[in-house]
Amino acid sequence: MNKALIEVPGFADVQAAAKRIAPYAVRTPLVESPILSALTGGRVFLKLESLQRTGSFKFRGACNRILMIPEAERAKGVVAFSSGNHAQGVAAAAQLFGIPALIVMPKDAPQAKIEGTRAYGAEIVTYDRVVDDREAIAAKFVTERGATLVKPFDDPGIMAGQGTAGLEIAEDAARFGVRLDAVATPCSGGGLVTGVALALKGAGVAATVHSVEPENFDGMRRSLAAHARVTAPGGKLSIADALMSPVPGHHVFAAAEGLLGSGIAVNDEDLSRAVAFAALKLKLLVEPGGTAALAALLAGKLPGKNLALLISGGNADFAMVAEAVRRHSHP
Amino acid sequence: MNKALIEVPGFADVQAAAKRIAPYAVRTPLVESPILSALTGGRVFLKLESLQRTGSFKFRGACNRILMIPEAERAKGVVAFSSGNHAQGVAAAAQLFGIPALIVMPKDAPQAKIEGTRAYGAEIVTYDRVVDDREAIAAKFVTERGATLVKPFDDPGIMAGQGTAGLEIAEDAARFGVRLDAVATPCSGGGLVTGVALALKGAGVAATVHSVEPENFDGMRRSLAAHARVTAPGGKLSIADALMSPVPGHHVFAAAEGLLGSGIAVNDEDLSRAVAFAALKLKLLVEPGGTAALAALLAGKLPGKNLALLISGGNADFAMVAEAVRRHSHP
Repeated sequence: MNKALIEVPGFADVQAAAKRIAPYAVRTPLVESPILSALTGGRVFLKLESLQRTGSFKFRGACNRILMIPEAERAKGVVAFSSGNHAQGVAAAAQLFGIPALIVMPKDAPQAKIEGTRAYGAEIVTYDRVVDDREAIAAKFVTERGATLVKPFDDPGIMAGQGTAGLEIAEDAARFGVRLDAVATPCSGGGLVTGVALALKGAGVAATVHSVEPENFDGMRRSLAAHARVTAPGGKLSIADALMSPVPGHHVFAAAEGLLGSGIAVNDEDLSRAVAFAALKLKLLVEPGGTAALAALLAGKLPGKNLALLISGGNADFAMVAEAVRRHSHP
Repeated sequence: MNKALIEVPGFADVQAAAKRIAPYAVRTPLVESPILSALTGGRVFLKLESLQRTGSFKFRGACNRILMIPEAERAKGVVAFSSGNHAQGVAAAAQLFGIPALIVMPKDAPQAKIEGTRAYGAEIVTYDRVVDDREAIAAKFVTERGATLVKPFDDPGIMAGQGTAGLEIAEDAARFGVRLDAVATPCSGGGLVTGVALALKGAGVAATVHSVEPENFDGMRRSLAAHARVTAPGGKLSIADALMSPVPGHHVFAAAEGLLGSGIAVNDEDLSRAVAFAALKLKLLVEPGGTAALAALLAGKLPGKNLALLISGGNADFAMVAEAVRRHSHP
């Protein structure tokens, strides 16, 4: 890809996105957790995107991107490929605006996510994670129907939309009178963490922003360390079904360099413990990927005293949460 | 009881309580639920006291009441009787201020609540709900130790403390630019619903405030209808272990008359369905009693389009939530 063609969103794009999606997105809360504050000796806040429309932050980017499609193009519909949260974000936003949506989803996506996507009225085509090329399947529908592809992360409109969560963190941290040392967010392709970092910097928040990824899918961590896009080895699937992109997007990484602090990797044990902790101690249903920043803190991998942890999604199959609770409540 | 001796808190007491507890209590969020908004055709907000310190609103009243004890009396300690949430509120507040706490709890309280109370460093004495008189047991310790009894609801300091949640609802509703038709809160002895109503009225919010109780423990509903304190029949225990006071307190009812709209009663099926809905759709772990206002809405028993539902606590045994989910996810 020609580097000259890579567009990076600016702070004004995040501000425009916030205005665009305000009538549709939930203004999610930033709430202090006394249990976590006691753990760091400072003040730890949770940004609850699990309470966002569709149960994850993905609605922000999808809604912003879809509202950027020219009026005349909208009737031809939108196409997306996604393991589930972006699928629901796109389907819900399309439904709000009366636009047809076709979503390409892996066969092994959590049932809660497949059913959620269908409930928002989208047409669903499933594929096999190992043998099929989801981008090719999506491209075929785009060509056939003249629909707009709504990418999961590597798109300035998506990054700006996800960044609106960062604007809200900045606003609420000011209201609480807290100076944040660090903000951590789960990371798959990097649209969220980069958008949030862009928003915080633009809003004058000096916190270090950390991406948190599953081990072996930690493309952002490796890329930041190498100062170049590096693909993580992948391999055995992580329980964080939402965080398995092995490499940050082109646009994403161009924006991330110089904006993010070092990346953090967590393992399945860290994630499963965090799912149980969220349910038992925080009273929140969070999906494994959604807990990544919390998992990093609980595993002692996230430095700082005054922290904001973005809880990115709650679309877990309940049985999986119950299993994590069973495993971790009798130590 | 001589009516002349009944003290009723005023709006200034709620404001003073808010100032007193601000450094210790969590500023809990008011968050819109798009799923519930779609249900009423208006805007439905949740006030998440399940995210309060100790997992329920009870910390507010306990913290306020304990900070009202004269310095010289504090070292003698505090005593409380409670099915669990008030127990944890008192234990946690006492621990914060280095005051010894003794809590009288029913043997059959949820394990999560007994363990929680013990974790806050309180001494625990258990009793049998059917044969023992918990007030007499508590009174004995008060006499022996010179400790202060921190009542669960029938005390102006407790009511004013619980009312601080109402102040926050008023503030946040203004920020969201919404005119609330009704505010509903779970109700046991009535300290919360009355404190909240007092705060909303004082803050100029014209919403009707509804108490929601389990059937057969709906003393507030019956008392409001009869314009006199009436004891509900009780009988088979409700799954809402936190809401089994059969009659509103003396101070509570004196304040409630003329302040509250009609009371609402929900049954175990309504509550269990709401527990499952909270977990699956709202991504929140809520105890049965904590869902009462949500249960009323889902059961079609709560009128109005723009609503705030107070979610009062999240201290459920996880297995109970899992059972509710199992029962209600395959209709």
